[in-house]
Amino acid sequence: MYLLIDEKGRHYLIRGDDDFHTNYGVISSKELSKKKSGSVIETQTGHGYFVIEPSMLDFIKKSKRGPQAITLKDCGLIASYSGIGPGSRVLEAGTGSGILAMFLANIVSPGRLTTYEIREDFAQIAKGNFKKAGIKNIRLRMKDIYEGIDEKKLDVITLDLPEPWKVVEHARNSLKPGGYLVSYSPSIEQSKRFYNELDGFMSETVECIVRNWDMKVVRPHSRMIAHTAFITFARWLGKEGPQIE
Amino acid sequence: MYLLIDEKGRHYLIRGDDDFHTNYGVISSKELSKKKSGSVIETQTGHGYFVIEPSMLDFIKKSKRGPQAITLKDCGLIASYSGIGPGSRVLEAGTGSGILAMFLANIVSPGRLTTYEIREDFAQIAKGNFKKAGIKNIRLRMKDIYEGIDEKKLDVITLDLPEPWKVVEHARNSLKPGGYLVSYSPSIEQSKRFYNELDGFMSETVECIVRNWDMKVVRPHSRMIAHTAFITFARWLGKEGPQIE
Amino acid sequence: MYLLIDEKGRHYLIRGDDDFHTNYGVISSKELSKKKSGSVIETQTGHGYFVIEPSMLDFIKKSKRGPQAITLKDCGLIASYSGIGPGSRVLEAGTGSGILAMFLANIVSPGRLTTYEIREDFAQIAKGNFKKAGIKNIRLRMKDIYEGIDEKKLDVITLDLPEPWKVVEHARNSLKPGGYLVSYSPSIEQSKRFYNELDGFMSETVECIVRNWDMKVVRPHSRMIAHTAFITFARWLGKEGPQIE
Amino acid sequence: MYLLIDEKGRHYLIRGDDDFHTNYGVISSKELSKKKSGSVIETQTGHGYFVIEPSMLDFIKKSKRGPQAITLKDCGLIASYSGIGPGSRVLEAGTGSGILAMFLANIVSPGRLTTYEIREDFAQIAKGNFKKAGIKNIRLRMKDIYEGIDEKKLDVITLDLPEPWKVVEHARNSLKPGGYLVSYSPSIEQSKRFYNELDGFMSETVECIVRNWDMKVVRPHSRMIAHTAFITFARWLGKEGPQIE
Repeated sequence: MYLLIDEKGRHYLIRGDDDFHTNYGVISSKELSKKKSGSVIETQTGHGYFVIEPSMLDFIKKSKRGPQAITLKDCGLIASYSGIGPGSRVLEAGTGSGILAMFLANIVSPGRLTTYEIREDFAQIAKGNFKKAGIKNIRLRMKDIYEGIDEKKLDVITLDLPEPWKVVEHARNSLKPGGYLVSYSPSIEQSKRFYNELDGFMSETVECIVRNWDMKVVRPHSRMIAHTAFITFARWLGKEGPQIE
Repeated sequence: MYLLIDEKGRHYLIRGDDDFHTNYGVISSKELSKKKSGSVIETQTGHGYFVIEPSMLDFIKKSKRGPQAITLKDCGLIASYSGIGPGSRVLEAGTGSGILAMFLANIVSPGRLTTYEIREDFAQIAKGNFKKAGIKNIRLRMKDIYEGIDEKKLDVITLDLPEPWKVVEHARNSLKPGGYLVSYSPSIEQSKRFYNELDGFMSETVECIVRNWDMKVVRPHSRMIAHTAFITFARWLGKEGPQIE
Repeated sequence: MYLLIDEKGRHYLIRGDDDFHTNYGVISSKELSKKKSGSVIETQTGHGYFVIEPSMLDFIKKSKRGPQAITLKDCGLIASYSGIGPGSRVLEAGTGSGILAMFLANIVSPGRLTTYEIREDFAQIAKGNFKKAGIKNIRLRMKDIYEGIDEKKLDVITLDLPEPWKVVEHARNSLKPGGYLVSYSPSIEQSKRFYNELDGFMSETVECIVRNWDMKVVRPHSRMIAHTAFITFARWLGKEGPQIE
Repeated sequence: MYLLIDEKGRHYLIRGDDDFHTNYGVISSKELSKKKSGSVIETQTGHGYFVIEPSMLDFIKKSKRGPQAITLKDCGLIASYSGIGPGSRVLEAGTGSGILAMFLANIVSPGRLTTYEIREDFAQIAKGNFKKAGIKNIRLRMKDIYEGIDEKKLDVITLDLPEPWKVVEHARNSLKPGGYLVSYSPSIEQSKRFYNELDGFMSETVECIVRNWDMKVVRPHSRMIAHTAFITFARWLGKEGPQIE
């Protein structure tokens, strides 16, 4: 696989089996195969493209995704606030297009991440994304997490679901003490209903806003993404406990 | 090591060698050693504390730190926007109290992270933090990154320095094509001066704002951290390239 | 009345009848009476204070206020988004410490603003503030707005109340077509419940966030006010109407 | 003039001299002239439109404007942070399409606002806007404020100019002690350069961010205006003064 970047900063992730047709002419597959990462390749009309060996991040960014797919800022926050690292035992539901699964699977590697999905169409998109990126440490299960969780002693469970409160009781039985139940909800009403079920957890709910700057004129860009979701991090303290205030 | 959490949600990370004296009485070292993670221990006056086996995240949060130490939100963003994962070759400077080094070392594991520091006092604090957390995959070097970088073929270089623009030329020689030079600066003037030096890189500058909600009354907390730093992610495209617009 | 400003930028609004005792010595009442606005007066130990003729804004800022008193940013937004100007017929409830009433009364002048309050203690504080500022065009009524509104043909009704939804029906009978019912609520749950009652109105709900910059180092201040209230602007379209989508 | 609002919430400000052609049929001029504010008028195909008597706010919102025209949130902040009220002596430059001038003129009424513009094309647009809105208390002067200010004893000077620092010395001679010099700049570099010239002023620089909520699902809208301008409020303390820290 090759990552091509043009003069405008546009990215193209291509296999390189065939010639690549751009608005500015053709990039030859044969020539491309001789290029090293960091070099420049030209179309027959003389337009240059940077040739870069793609990273996992490039595969994640170029994955097929739905309109509501999770953003990198939220992926990073989920990983950092719940302490996910190599070997962390993580369960995710629902898979959706698999963006968060890919992101977290990369971090837990060589461990394995499990993800539950109930919709066959989403599962197919996610599997396609995993395959393209060469990710092998994800186990995708066709399973409804509202019905229960088979895995035990989990470090983290992440939810991107319409009714996350239905998972809380299952999480109590499947999380390690000190583990995190993380829920990602666009509406604050969902977050509130989830929050109301969190007996025995210590939680915080946050929103993460990234603002991009135009550094030529040194000002924020005029428009931005104002909202993706409220994210609740609920740490499981075990069944013996008194209530946290 | 044990993590104790009281009814107010306060956290105590203790070794457990000695009895632990709280405002509400003593927790016996001997009794504590018999407790499993997820259980509750009481002082002799009957105040309960959750006993949790600490995670790497707990060690990072409880590390000794200066007033300007990087926050978890920014650690997460740096990792996610630059695609750091297991085996990533990362160089960091300056070490400071070592918070970002610990965070990233955890993710690159079993790979190793290198960090440069010039101040002996900071290096001592950082080493103390690494040791307490049991982190072994950090190589701390007493070295001025403005003078040069020894490491080659790096995936990511992260900078938390007053004059990051002095590192750009060295970064060109040490980053893999497609690798990231990341700079963390409180002042937008530093970011602008850094930005001006980024020939051959494709960059974006962002700020990451996390807002916490009080879910009892369903409103954001009255006060928040408004600013930590502007973070610039500059991707190295190689020396052959035309300029990205 | 005199506004004194010291070298640190601290403001003192004083009557000038008596000598004024500062941490740096005494300012003589007699000497002060001879100073023009824009001059400097010194204590007997030589500390300088700017002498400024106070404006209405200074009186508003220096009014006695509770912990939840409305901020200037929200006063400005309420006035601008509901189009309050000279002669606007405005009703406010509850008065609280009277900050918003003072702010709006200044703008509607020479018109008069009416404000309802049910708590005698708040009314006394508000009256004290109005008197100190020399504001005469506010009529403060001891009256529960949940019970009804006497005034008719109002341009704007502003609410800072725990149960604003109880006022909506009264507002329909008291607002001019095209007039605004404005509600200020800390909790989004209050805003939602208010929103649910707004048949026949066209509304928008916003939050207004002001971020202050430290221009010496050119960065936002580290901490800020993250939240005061959600403000809903509901424009009354009259009783004949179909529903706005 | 009539304000018509359709079922989607779209606004139309029309004179009513002629029949009004909509996508859903024609609204008869004659019939419209018989309608009271708050009633509904139908096209011949039965689509209803609310008929509202327009307020000054409607005229301001419907004024002809350039892409960079000031928003209502910033108009409100400028008025509230600089204490503009009836009779305030305000000078504005440059006029641009006249939005801020109209907003402030409405508040200073029956006083008069002066605005300087150097571009004839902008002046024509602004005059057209003033006329349509029926505003008479604005004096538009074709004059370069960098060259000087004729008016004296001003309460507030507001600037929306590329080089606001060129006005500071003139402002010192034209503002009352305690008056405000307000500058509106998209780039923080302009704000910094302006700030550097503010000897004898006490200033604060802020940005005002308004976030709109979708109250059906109780979440902020996905996208928002991230930035319009940095606004500096500099209060003139007079020529005698020591420096404020």
